[in-house]
Amino acid sequence: MDSREFKDAAAATIDDIVSYFDNIGERNVVATVEPGYLRKLLPSAAPVEGEPWAAIRHDVEAKIMPGMTHWNHPGFHAFFPCATSYPSILGELYSSALSTAAFNWICSPAVTELETIVLDWLAQLLGLPACYLSTGPTRGGGVIQGSASEAVLTAMVAARDKYLRETIPADGDTDADADAREDAVMRKRSRMVALATTATHSSVRKAALILGCRFRAIRVRAEDGYALTREGLAAELAACRAQGLEPFFLAVTLGTTDTCAVDDFAGVAQALEEQHAAPGAPGEVWVHVDAAYAGAALVCPEVQEATRIGLVGRFHSFDMNMHKWLLVNFDASCFFVRDRDWLIQALSVNQAVYGNKASAGGLVTDYREWQIPLGRRFRSLKIWFVMRSYGVKGLQENIRKTTGLGDEFAEWVRGRPDLFEIVTPPRFALTVFRMAGPTADASLEDRNALTKTLYEKANASGKIWLTSTELDGRFAIRLMTGVRTTEREHVEHAFKTLVAIAEEARA
Amino acid sequence: MDSREFKDAAAATIDDIVSYFDNIGERNVVATVEPGYLRKLLPSAAPVEGEPWAAIRHDVEAKIMPGMTHWNHPGFHAFFPCATSYPSILGELYSSALSTAAFNWICSPAVTELETIVLDWLAQLLGLPACYLSTGPTRGGGVIQGSASEAVLTAMVAARDKYLRETIPADGDTDADADAREDAVMRKRSRMVALATTATHSSVRKAALILGCRFRAIRVRAEDGYALTREGLAAELAACRAQGLEPFFLAVTLGTTDTCAVDDFAGVAQALEEQHAAPGAPGEVWVHVDAAYAGAALVCPEVQEATRIGLVGRFHSFDMNMHKWLLVNFDASCFFVRDRDWLIQALSVNQAVYGNKASAGGLVTDYREWQIPLGRRFRSLKIWFVMRSYGVKGLQENIRKTTGLGDEFAEWVRGRPDLFEIVTPPRFALTVFRMAGPTADASLEDRNALTKTLYEKANASGKIWLTSTELDGRFAIRLMTGVRTTEREHVEHAFKTLVAIAEEARA
Repeated sequence: MDSREFKDAAAATIDDIVSYFDNIGERNVVATVEPGYLRKLLPSAAPVEGEPWAAIRHDVEAKIMPGMTHWNHPGFHAFFPCATSYPSILGELYSSALSTAAFNWICSPAVTELETIVLDWLAQLLGLPACYLSTGPTRGGGVIQGSASEAVLTAMVAARDKYLRETIPADGDTDADADAREDAVMRKRSRMVALATTATHSSVRKAALILGCRFRAIRVRAEDGYALTREGLAAELAACRAQGLEPFFLAVTLGTTDTCAVDDFAGVAQALEEQHAAPGAPGEVWVHVDAAYAGAALVCPEVQEATRIGLVGRFHSFDMNMHKWLLVNFDASCFFVRDRDWLIQALSVNQAVYGNKASAGGLVTDYREWQIPLGRRFRSLKIWFVMRSYGVKGLQENIRKTTGLGDEFAEWVRGRPDLFEIVTPPRFALTVFRMAGPTADASLEDRNALTKTLYEKANASGKIWLTSTELDGRFAIRLMTGVRTTEREHVEHAFKTLVAIAEEARA
Repeated sequence: MDSREFKDAAAATIDDIVSYFDNIGERNVVATVEPGYLRKLLPSAAPVEGEPWAAIRHDVEAKIMPGMTHWNHPGFHAFFPCATSYPSILGELYSSALSTAAFNWICSPAVTELETIVLDWLAQLLGLPACYLSTGPTRGGGVIQGSASEAVLTAMVAARDKYLRETIPADGDTDADADAREDAVMRKRSRMVALATTATHSSVRKAALILGCRFRAIRVRAEDGYALTREGLAAELAACRAQGLEPFFLAVTLGTTDTCAVDDFAGVAQALEEQHAAPGAPGEVWVHVDAAYAGAALVCPEVQEATRIGLVGRFHSFDMNMHKWLLVNFDASCFFVRDRDWLIQALSVNQAVYGNKASAGGLVTDYREWQIPLGRRFRSLKIWFVMRSYGVKGLQENIRKTTGLGDEFAEWVRGRPDLFEIVTPPRFALTVFRMAGPTADASLEDRNALTKTLYEKANASGKIWLTSTELDGRFAIRLMTGVRTTEREHVEHAFKTLVAIAEEARA
């Protein structure tokens, strides 16, 4: 494909993309293809001769589109959003042309420097304390990761190494000393435990699986709104101590997957101080704040205030995904740490070929030392484009509009107590509800079956997509209104669909 | 930014990209900015009001470009290439518009199915044995990872879990049984060791750091071309046994970073069989083939034959990066495993909200169970576009042309024994060389200093970029000719530059 062909192909692609967004509501949200549909449509091997662009473009609409589930469809109320926007697409476009494996500063200084700068912009915008800024007092800063799963894994690795460094000092320089320390580390590791709650995202359990360390999920309760409390954490810390286990890591959440619960940050800090090491003391528990989805809402000062976000300055790391609710396309997980050396000490591995004067001089950031992989894409470009194109006001508007739609939906649900029951109140554009009744003494099984029917029929309509969850044995429906393209009329349509099915079920 | 503004902005961006590639050779390869250059040029916070596209576009050329190191510059002879191509850019463009977190099949069936299909195409194209095909006899298959580092980490986690499952049977169902097994696992883990060589990529050591497991690098020798041999591995296995350590994982390499060495696959298989468990026996060592860069060359049948690639059927996993030398932009690390259940058993973590009929039916692939992160981008699209647009012939031509340039460069180097000495012969478009003399009895330090001067002066020219390494204390220069835009004239220019500096140094 030469420059001329590329220009034509790209122009056609841009037309396809604009037309895709202009008409996205006319498609079904969820693909209705059968498993294995695509293998029937494609040859069994790569073509020997190159094909013209027209043939490839044709197959995108004819063969790929039927198999797409449209995460930016206005009727996408499932999971959390997976954003995209025009400025973000342009950022990705430049990035793919400037392909670079920018693991060290010198590999493309702009990739590293723009990342540091836009993450400082973001930290300020979210109201994070200064310790998470690259220019702050504690040598903290931000780094873009591929996903919240990678961020929590990175945090847990750093936490484990910090804990081992602080609790098993390295004495002496001989091989025998090193062997003795390795044995002590192995013994200690077998007692270390990572903590989270039963409402925490599965990525924390997965990170513990990868590290091969013990994991305990603290049970959260409906009466606490499924949030971790001081009492819950204190009891778990005491139980660990009684069993000779050593907690070294705790994931707290701002906006859990099931219900968007927010853990009690002040209570967590208090429990840790009372039951465990004081903040900053050797062997303190590393607290990672998973704000993957709801962290986006912190661009609004009223949310910063409501969540008392300044409290995260007592913790160690914070992560939020701009690619969920902040108009940047996947992937852009923004991970902040209070002291970059915690990452570098755990993750720096050198090789002769990486050597260069800028790194040796110590004046630059080499992000390979802040993450699991070596290479990295130019992901800050799309963040920069989105921030500049929307401006702070535009980002706030998107959060406020979609949060408002969620609140409105919950109001409508509350207005039909004959049909529905709110399970958890609307938070961050997410409402969790289930079918009411049918009678006051209906069994849990009957009520679950009823809600499940509503859920399946609503999804079968093709124009909306909802996800479900289970809370203390109660089957419940999650309706999320955070997609950029979702307007009041779409939420109204979803509500009417739900009412019609519920009324029919009740009749 | 509305549809109209996006169309205009995208058209301008496409023009910028075409002009970038048309004139890339006129830029300096490596950015010459000072650390911190960008902070001086950008505001300290995100703008409150949105800005027009023209302002953003202007800043890309004015502020970002000076800080770019151009990995697709014809004079980029450093590290390995980080490819891009027009069809790949179009793939990324569609992917960013269709933003989806396709962790389960239903989240976008096309994302999962196209990935399985194009990785089957690729496995065939590389001559991998049928066990690595999704349709093969062993329930194997491929998955796209972000980088070779993630692939090796994933392989190592799966290997550790497979080893523990096979060597510590799970007896009984009681809590006491589970506790006893956990204790046994912790004891066993403290004795497990991952193996690689001193020439293996740093990502293997990093994976062991992340897992927190022991790691040993087997020393490879100049006389073996820096490749792992049967004898070397056998000796290490015996040493481990003597110390009560249990090897569970071995990384072998097709194309090491320093010199593109290829480990002796037949010898490795033989040593494992003789010294350790037979293939398929419980407790066998998992062998991961890291072909991150040179694996691309396997698209040529002559390379499949020369490397006896069929032997990897005796091993467990294989990884190569299309984003290095196969015209797909970063990231597209193609990871193949002989039995997908090894991954799923190690990495599957469920959460109520992921539940859906297709997954429950067991008929579909949920790639979240094959990787570290949960979400994933639509990366197969760019692979599909590149394979179709270039065709097999086009991919082969790119490998043969750039390998030929490397061979030619090495011939020129050999033609000036007064100035240069080949350290390792040209392999996969990489030549490693150093300064000759100046006298037959010159000290290692003097020769290193001479080569270092050549290296630094050549890079200072701005028009070429080389990387260096150190082999048994010998400072050496790596010159790689794998970039798509590199033509004979550019390699000739690099050679002439080197000769001029070397002659001046000698005079």
